[in-house]
Amino acid sequence: MKKVFLVACLSTICMFAMSQEALWKNVAVVSPEIHENNTVTFRLVAPNAAKVEVTGDFLPEQIIDTHNGKVNVKGVASMSKDSIGVWQYTTGVLGSELYNYNFIVDGLQITDPSNVYQVRDIASVMNIFLIEGGKADLYKVGEVPHGNVSKVWYDSPALGMKRRMTVYTPAGYEDSADRRYPVLYLLHGMGGDEEAWCTLGRATQILDNLIAQGKAEPMIVVMPNGNAVQEAAPGENSDGFKAPTTQLEKTMEGSFETAFGDIVSYVDTHYRTLADKQHRAIAGLSMGGFHSLHVSRLNPDMFGYIGLFSAAILPGQVDPNGIYANFEETLKLQFDKKPALYWIAIGKSDFLYEANSDFRQLLDSNGLKYVYHESEGGHVWRNWRDYLSEFVPMLFKKAE
Amino acid sequence: MKKVFLVACLSTICMFAMSQEALWKNVAVVSPEIHENNTVTFRLVAPNAAKVEVTGDFLPEQIIDTHNGKVNVKGVASMSKDSIGVWQYTTGVLGSELYNYNFIVDGLQITDPSNVYQVRDIASVMNIFLIEGGKADLYKVGEVPHGNVSKVWYDSPALGMKRRMTVYTPAGYEDSADRRYPVLYLLHGMGGDEEAWCTLGRATQILDNLIAQGKAEPMIVVMPNGNAVQEAAPGENSDGFKAPTTQLEKTMEGSFETAFGDIVSYVDTHYRTLADKQHRAIAGLSMGGFHSLHVSRLNPDMFGYIGLFSAAILPGQVDPNGIYANFEETLKLQFDKKPALYWIAIGKSDFLYEANSDFRQLLDSNGLKYVYHESEGGHVWRNWRDYLSEFVPMLFKKAE
Repeated sequence: MKKVFLVACLSTICMFAMSQEALWKNVAVVSPEIHENNTVTFRLVAPNAAKVEVTGDFLPEQIIDTHNGKVNVKGVASMSKDSIGVWQYTTGVLGSELYNYNFIVDGLQITDPSNVYQVRDIASVMNIFLIEGGKADLYKVGEVPHGNVSKVWYDSPALGMKRRMTVYTPAGYEDSADRRYPVLYLLHGMGGDEEAWCTLGRATQILDNLIAQGKAEPMIVVMPNGNAVQEAAPGENSDGFKAPTTQLEKTMEGSFETAFGDIVSYVDTHYRTLADKQHRAIAGLSMGGFHSLHVSRLNPDMFGYIGLFSAAILPGQVDPNGIYANFEETLKLQFDKKPALYWIAIGKSDFLYEANSDFRQLLDSNGLKYVYHESEGGHVWRNWRDYLSEFVPMLFKKAE
Repeated sequence: MKKVFLVACLSTICMFAMSQEALWKNVAVVSPEIHENNTVTFRLVAPNAAKVEVTGDFLPEQIIDTHNGKVNVKGVASMSKDSIGVWQYTTGVLGSELYNYNFIVDGLQITDPSNVYQVRDIASVMNIFLIEGGKADLYKVGEVPHGNVSKVWYDSPALGMKRRMTVYTPAGYEDSADRRYPVLYLLHGMGGDEEAWCTLGRATQILDNLIAQGKAEPMIVVMPNGNAVQEAAPGENSDGFKAPTTQLEKTMEGSFETAFGDIVSYVDTHYRTLADKQHRAIAGLSMGGFHSLHVSRLNPDMFGYIGLFSAAILPGQVDPNGIYANFEETLKLQFDKKPALYWIAIGKSDFLYEANSDFRQLLDSNGLKYVYHESEGGHVWRNWRDYLSEFVPMLFKKAE
């Protein structure tokens, strides 16, 4: 034994590092570097590149023409090269936000090799960084009690498959054997899945922080997969490592709405829920707003709180289950039953702004009461994180 | 309302795609493309690059000299450019495995922009792909019942913090109210964290598949964070988006081992466990093998099954808690109490091969019985996934 313990420990750390398949070639620079004044410097070692740019949502948007019309895309800024081949760009002072960016090297869009913090948005991978000192403090992992996050497989007889969803249980849930909790069902947009609200949406951190600050009730948050043909997110289902796509079947044609009861029934039998309308909320972004609108309308006794975030208030693609018929009557019935909150949020430059205005006009003309929140900006996660942060503190207050 | 429903649905899908911050610039090629004969083609659109290479663990390793001696690094192959600027490389026929790779563009190592499937190993991000038809079928999401995976915060009074761990509960756990389950504690290596076994190690898929095939007992798998100074993995703790590092304090100096009881006690009070030695296993890779060796030695009545995967059987860095003293006596005591299985696995070219030989010699010279598994290859995840697949079917059989 003596020999084992006398083995020279020389360079052990180094050998671990070299041998654990870790590749250190690109970590010679710090990127992004967030300065004290909230400017940010990006760096990339690429001595052989002719042109390097950074593109991100902290730069002014560009408007480009496509064959479908004009679309807003992220701004691009040129980086400059120093004498040893390090490209660099420093932003102006940035407000508090969770930002995303990529580099473009001679036309090739890549992630920053010095920053392991990345999120996937549909088929794109972007780096992220966070500027503290304002609203993005809600998106940080705070020094607060943390809820647990589970990937849970539930049975959906209506869709004929086991499906995966993400469930957040608030701090204390596991240690309070008798306490029951209200539930927020939180739905993603087209091309998203059961992971989107936790990765892009920072739902875990927003809930942890708002609950710790006493601004939100401790609640369970259920984030299902809204793509009725999918068992689970890309890479987590039996299709293998297939490229993510928005071109899925059965997204806005009633299948998901019709099968929603399977989710509620699983949650109410497997979690300590307060299983009534006063303690149930539903909200979603874009397609998830469309789903929230219809699921709550079709189940007027199920949800006391409804949130439409940049909702895709558009006709269903087709309607094999006939759930989009009798829209106005069922909507009136839902409002007759007085939900505690019907909240509509949209950004001024969202391509769905007009569709939402039309919908509000319909509600107004029928005297149906809702709360309206209009923000700057468009159809982007920055707004949806913000809407969630606004929405959650309003939930379940009237039930106390 | 009529108007809302008459809004033209033209290009809706396209607008969603354009507006949800998804960047499509790089998805014009398929990469990797896995052909029917199990060759693989990688592609990158980089018309302006002078040289593009692919590096991955499917290529023969290279041996390079460093100031610390010789180390093995992943092989590199040149890609060739076609007339429109698409770089391409096709492998030979590959055996069934989960492989990783990166591109190197004019010396800059990047991930493949056409492949969203990535894993982080310490401070590096790599793409992955899977070749079916052999052992890697265990690493796929199978068409089998799935266990749930939770990120759970537990209290560690011994370390003075709440800490995060990953807990796998087997399919059926949630629906069998009275059934109790055995537990495998599964530990990561230096620079890893509570996410490593699920992301790099495919533990979820290996367990799901082996259990479904009837080859492994349904079990709970607990994957804690073995870095005693860390609450949670990089990005999931209150340090924010700090770069991951192997240079953490308190990794192999007794703190984690001393505090291990906090984990077992949380698990036994919060899950339906079979809380005895016959139904408890511990295993780990590299530093996690070191931890498994010492935690099981110090708690000879706690674990019936012990697995050392490429274990870092090296002196502790320092020993403030005095837990590495009396090594030989306590080891004999552990073996006197007859663990059902003491399993040692290592690759022939692992830099820890000699340290493991020395340890086996010590066991042999004391007549202490273990099972030895020697594989090809070195200190890599490919081996650890394989070891887990070998180890798990042996667990908890003797207890029946």
